[in-house]
Amino acid sequence: MTAATNRRVLLRARPVGEPKATDFEIVDAPMPTPGEGEILCRTLWLSLDPYMRGRMSERKSYTASVELGQPMVGGTVSEVTTSRHPDFATGDIVLGYGGWQTYHVARAGGTPGPFGPLKLDPKVAPVSTALGVLGMPGMTAYVGLLDLGQPKAGETVVVSAAAGAVGSIVGQLAKIKGCRAVGVAGSQSKCDYVVTELGFDACVSYRSPDLATALKDTCPRGIDVYFDNVGGDVLRAVLGLVNPFARIPLCGLISQYNATEMPPGPNLAPFLFNRITLRGFIVSDHVDRLPSFLADMAGWVRGGRIKYREDVVEGLDQAPRAFIGLLRGENFGKMLVKMG
Amino acid sequence: MTAATNRRVLLRARPVGEPKATDFEIVDAPMPTPGEGEILCRTLWLSLDPYMRGRMSERKSYTASVELGQPMVGGTVSEVTTSRHPDFATGDIVLGYGGWQTYHVARAGGTPGPFGPLKLDPKVAPVSTALGVLGMPGMTAYVGLLDLGQPKAGETVVVSAAAGAVGSIVGQLAKIKGCRAVGVAGSQSKCDYVVTELGFDACVSYRSPDLATALKDTCPRGIDVYFDNVGGDVLRAVLGLVNPFARIPLCGLISQYNATEMPPGPNLAPFLFNRITLRGFIVSDHVDRLPSFLADMAGWVRGGRIKYREDVVEGLDQAPRAFIGLLRGENFGKMLVKMG
Repeated sequence: MTAATNRRVLLRARPVGEPKATDFEIVDAPMPTPGEGEILCRTLWLSLDPYMRGRMSERKSYTASVELGQPMVGGTVSEVTTSRHPDFATGDIVLGYGGWQTYHVARAGGTPGPFGPLKLDPKVAPVSTALGVLGMPGMTAYVGLLDLGQPKAGETVVVSAAAGAVGSIVGQLAKIKGCRAVGVAGSQSKCDYVVTELGFDACVSYRSPDLATALKDTCPRGIDVYFDNVGGDVLRAVLGLVNPFARIPLCGLISQYNATEMPPGPNLAPFLFNRITLRGFIVSDHVDRLPSFLADMAGWVRGGRIKYREDVVEGLDQAPRAFIGLLRGENFGKMLVKMG
Repeated sequence: MTAATNRRVLLRARPVGEPKATDFEIVDAPMPTPGEGEILCRTLWLSLDPYMRGRMSERKSYTASVELGQPMVGGTVSEVTTSRHPDFATGDIVLGYGGWQTYHVARAGGTPGPFGPLKLDPKVAPVSTALGVLGMPGMTAYVGLLDLGQPKAGETVVVSAAAGAVGSIVGQLAKIKGCRAVGVAGSQSKCDYVVTELGFDACVSYRSPDLATALKDTCPRGIDVYFDNVGGDVLRAVLGLVNPFARIPLCGLISQYNATEMPPGPNLAPFLFNRITLRGFIVSDHVDRLPSFLADMAGWVRGGRIKYREDVVEGLDQAPRAFIGLLRGENFGKMLVKMG
């Protein structure tokens, strides 16, 4: 890449099953030029998130697919290199939605959502956190657990993908609310981290030979809130242990994102007998909660009550491999690409 | 049966699959005797409801199973033949939970729930309605649609088992709220009734060769509320047509009540993408809504805005056959046994 080009990762082919390296193409494109009211941004950090798998597919989802030949989408933290908007200056750090590329142009002004463009103050927190604990994943945990899960002190909260960007925050929020927090994760080292570093009460591996028994042992008073990031077998095991009036915020279904045929869901009898509320949600529907989230979460992070971990790969060229690994559960904490 | 005996239908065997006549046993037992504070009731009407299938099973449900050798449970409207409680007199008509038998003793006083014991005024409405439109099924429709479904004027409400005791009320309530009401029922005659007599906008048979297309044609603006009594294929078809933020009050799963193995549920992707809220509920959790329900529903029935239909068999001996038919969808309206 020279200074005059913009390196981009394009969607070359729609994946069948697990994405392959050849589903992506890395190209050097001409530099974009900002128009009036726009800013040119050089990406410092690119966020990799499971929802991006849906964008690669033509299957119906909540937003449009990435077109073939277009860059992959994604949240970014960038430095402004050229500004044609009075509110932004060269050198400003901004949260945006620049996608998998080194440069992008953003229209400034308007009301910033969870994806900006929003000016960041590097003195408040490391700017990468705007893509994690203080960004979309953190707000997903906040809205999903607190608003939809409605945990009450003394209740048991279970969260899957517990060492991930969202799950790790969910369990810590549950502890702040006085709940028992139990994680489900993919390895013993993740479980150890979640308990020892993050303060969860327990964590079980979804690879346990008998997940239902392992969960039962760690949830002696049943399960009141299950924050679901994965669907599949973990959800089935949880449904055997839920208490009456349990709440299930449904945040993700990563167990099926690479599936070529949609697998069946769990039998619904427990939903009826236990009067369960299951609620699918997407954080961008809850932008009104952004100020509360930022105030609360920044305070908890500063006070050491919420910890976070970043899993960083270096260089845009690594993004496809890191993303494929993310879908396999190989990441450990918030997956980020640090740009060159 | 002589005047001195109490005819009862006992649970003889736990059904495997569809209940058989031999799973029940009809016996003549000694007359029960009321103690201090109790009333002896002679049943006039016995309610037959799908939930009773769950009581015949040992499978986990929200209440205890009927013990083998014990009478089947059920809501009843009875005449007091002996009273040992000052608030009740011989000849009073009471709503209760007497079960499948000609006589039962009830403890009077205390706070009556949706199952009483509650004195009925025959001048207000035919007393059988206390088991239907003005009773548990009507209140199930009221709470499930209005409180949990939250229908807004102009939205589309779909209800399964639309000619049944609950579904028929749900669609009429949807019309009162200014919604488009679409039923799903098991025969053309039921569909005709639901549209012509009850005023639903449309009704499709779940036996349609292509249910999804039939539903799509009758729900041109998608589905905002699905009041589910059945689960299974109807739910799957609905999930392909729901609008964002759809609500699904889950009231019953009659499609699987006779199943010997629990069938899988629908794939959960639409719940996530469309931010669906699914909420299992049981009317007895909502007793606080009884006064509002009775006031509203009695007014609507008196004013002709809510119509109802009863499917009556005569004599307790017919109860097993009628109940087996109910699970097959052979009833047409609220299923009742008129006692001899």
